[in-house]
Amino acid sequence: MNIFILGGDGFCGWPTTLHLSKLGYNVHILDNLSRRKIDTELGVSSLTPIASIEQRVEAWNQISGANIIFHQIDLATEYERLLGLLLTHKPGAIVHFAEQRAAPYSMKNSATKRYTIFNNTNVTHNVLCAMVESKLEPHLVHLGTMGVYGYSSTGLTLPEGYLHAELKNIHGEISDCEILYPTSPGSIYHMTKCLDQEMFKFYAKNDHLRITDLHQGIVWGTMTDEVMLDERLINRFDYDGDYGTVLNRFLSQAAIGYPLTVHGTGGQTRAFIHIRDTVRCIALAIKNPPNKGERVKIFNQQTEIYSVIELAELVAELTGSEIQYIENPRYEAKENSLKADNENFLYHLKLEPTLLGDKLIQEIYECSVKYKDRIDPKHILCQSIWNEERKQVIEKGLRE
Amino acid sequence: MNIFILGGDGFCGWPTTLHLSKLGYNVHILDNLSRRKIDTELGVSSLTPIASIEQRVEAWNQISGANIIFHQIDLATEYERLLGLLLTHKPGAIVHFAEQRAAPYSMKNSATKRYTIFNNTNVTHNVLCAMVESKLEPHLVHLGTMGVYGYSSTGLTLPEGYLHAELKNIHGEISDCEILYPTSPGSIYHMTKCLDQEMFKFYAKNDHLRITDLHQGIVWGTMTDEVMLDERLINRFDYDGDYGTVLNRFLSQAAIGYPLTVHGTGGQTRAFIHIRDTVRCIALAIKNPPNKGERVKIFNQQTEIYSVIELAELVAELTGSEIQYIENPRYEAKENSLKADNENFLYHLKLEPTLLGDKLIQEIYECSVKYKDRIDPKHILCQSIWNEERKQVIEKGLRE
Repeated sequence: MNIFILGGDGFCGWPTTLHLSKLGYNVHILDNLSRRKIDTELGVSSLTPIASIEQRVEAWNQISGANIIFHQIDLATEYERLLGLLLTHKPGAIVHFAEQRAAPYSMKNSATKRYTIFNNTNVTHNVLCAMVESKLEPHLVHLGTMGVYGYSSTGLTLPEGYLHAELKNIHGEISDCEILYPTSPGSIYHMTKCLDQEMFKFYAKNDHLRITDLHQGIVWGTMTDEVMLDERLINRFDYDGDYGTVLNRFLSQAAIGYPLTVHGTGGQTRAFIHIRDTVRCIALAIKNPPNKGERVKIFNQQTEIYSVIELAELVAELTGSEIQYIENPRYEAKENSLKADNENFLYHLKLEPTLLGDKLIQEIYECSVKYKDRIDPKHILCQSIWNEERKQVIEKGLRE
Repeated sequence: MNIFILGGDGFCGWPTTLHLSKLGYNVHILDNLSRRKIDTELGVSSLTPIASIEQRVEAWNQISGANIIFHQIDLATEYERLLGLLLTHKPGAIVHFAEQRAAPYSMKNSATKRYTIFNNTNVTHNVLCAMVESKLEPHLVHLGTMGVYGYSSTGLTLPEGYLHAELKNIHGEISDCEILYPTSPGSIYHMTKCLDQEMFKFYAKNDHLRITDLHQGIVWGTMTDEVMLDERLINRFDYDGDYGTVLNRFLSQAAIGYPLTVHGTGGQTRAFIHIRDTVRCIALAIKNPPNKGERVKIFNQQTEIYSVIELAELVAELTGSEIQYIENPRYEAKENSLKADNENFLYHLKLEPTLLGDKLIQEIYECSVKYKDRIDPKHILCQSIWNEERKQVIEKGLRE
């Protein structure tokens, strides 16, 4: 079966590409290399020295005997080419990672807000539209985020997308129904995933497209079995304040003796997943598509829940680093509790989770130490501030 | 007070422009004339011979002594110009009509689907983004649609945006909260208004923008006090299958002796409003902004509820026309009941509604008869078909 991986050059996209190729799928990467271009824009590089897309694809094809094909295409603007690729290669599944995926970058300034909306909304819609126009019926597997739910609005254990609701209007009329969990995104990036969700719902209803939406937790780690096979296959590792995910960022801070910077109280509680499980979850989702006419399948793709301070303490203990509390640039609840379902992957699809433990953290730490000369300390702190109120608090703190 | 009217050259935008100008506001129209360009694309014209934007603005300024200013600008792509206009003119309110607003056009083909998503999403977001960047705090009044609710999902009297919900997950945990009524849009156009709603929610929360979202019913009529003052001020009247709203379309069909074409059973029940009330509602909304930090104000902008067949029978009786039932190109429930709140405008803000009655219908009919030579019968039927299933049903009907 042919599979298209949209955004197959990125942090999750690349290891997924290799994993699916290893499983025997014929993988096509569709990517405009925007993640590399944003690195250039921000003046930052992956901690790990990633090879060019041509080099890494060639290396994999050599090593594995597979034939991954890379198509450089801007999915937000080159609709006709996307449609042509669909009609030519007739993929059985499309994995959609082709969105700007950093919350801080999406809140950096007016241009990055607009880019995030423009790119994410138009890519998702172009893909849906091309699926209909092609009259092919590929299964779309989309990477969403746990952030569509928000983290403190209802106090409920977060469901996998859907919830039972008893609705009651001012006239006292009552209606029982299944609804999507009410969205409460914390950034423009997270909001685009809520917009995606609305588009998926419409196209599943109107055109009977088969869609799986994976609400993923925060990814940690960088290595999978496949990317470790050869230095040229190495995966991206972001340590910077915009793109670095929290645990990876702490470990690279530790590697250069920089204090572990915790926003606010560190009481923000989030769901996590190791990148090894990300790629396994995608493979499981591909094998278990919804039926035609079925509503969108929504899975929570996360295996563990921690607060930011718990992670900082874990890293501090392992590495002897100091923890430093700084003003939170994000406009969010200081603290929240969090429980979230993940029965679909863990129970029904038998994912054996990769849990946070010293050994894997040690592995990431060693990777950070190995490449620590590539870290530019001035990119470690988050430069994006969520709103005017946060800006004033932070500027006041700097003046004092 | 300065007011920006985005889309001020359109069917609702133009009469609103004149009404607000008459009330003493300094009105700026921001419009890319896309509605006129789509007429050209479709090979169709307004039933009424509308003047060019320059002519109609000049006529109004002459007649009223006001000084409406027209800015030709594409709000989806010219962000910096929008921001510049905001900073220069510092509007106290922005009225946002600048969206592709026909459901059939939005479902016509892949290009019109993508245009509708591209335009509506990017315009709305550019406006929100510029409001934040400008640090001005204008009140945004947006034209939404009753179609965000869908028409048959819960059976409840539709609330004005918000609803009480008792949420219950699979663990039996329960949470009480206020939620946005769960969306169920029936076309790409309607869906864009759901996406808008999500963006408004985010910006009201994160940046404390003041936003009013008016979920409007189907507009009928074409005349307001202001547009009737001079032939050069005449408003657009769409009779075609893409842009014509149902009652106006029936009356122009009657004017040329074309049967009144009813989709399916005509049991689709919808909310309606006369264009005179549209302009009054906008004025009332401007006078009653939400407070800074308040959630988005959502009003249902509709005064009456009818089924399509009731309207067809009304027009048939008045004009002697015949009713013809045709296959429904839309993918929607054959019939639905509908009740919807409108207390905010009718009770709290004291709108005196313009109800459907012989006199006003007669006025529209006379207008249709006056200009009937401008009707091209081949544009009367809806050419847009919602999905593959509907296409097959309609093609089968044509073959038999």
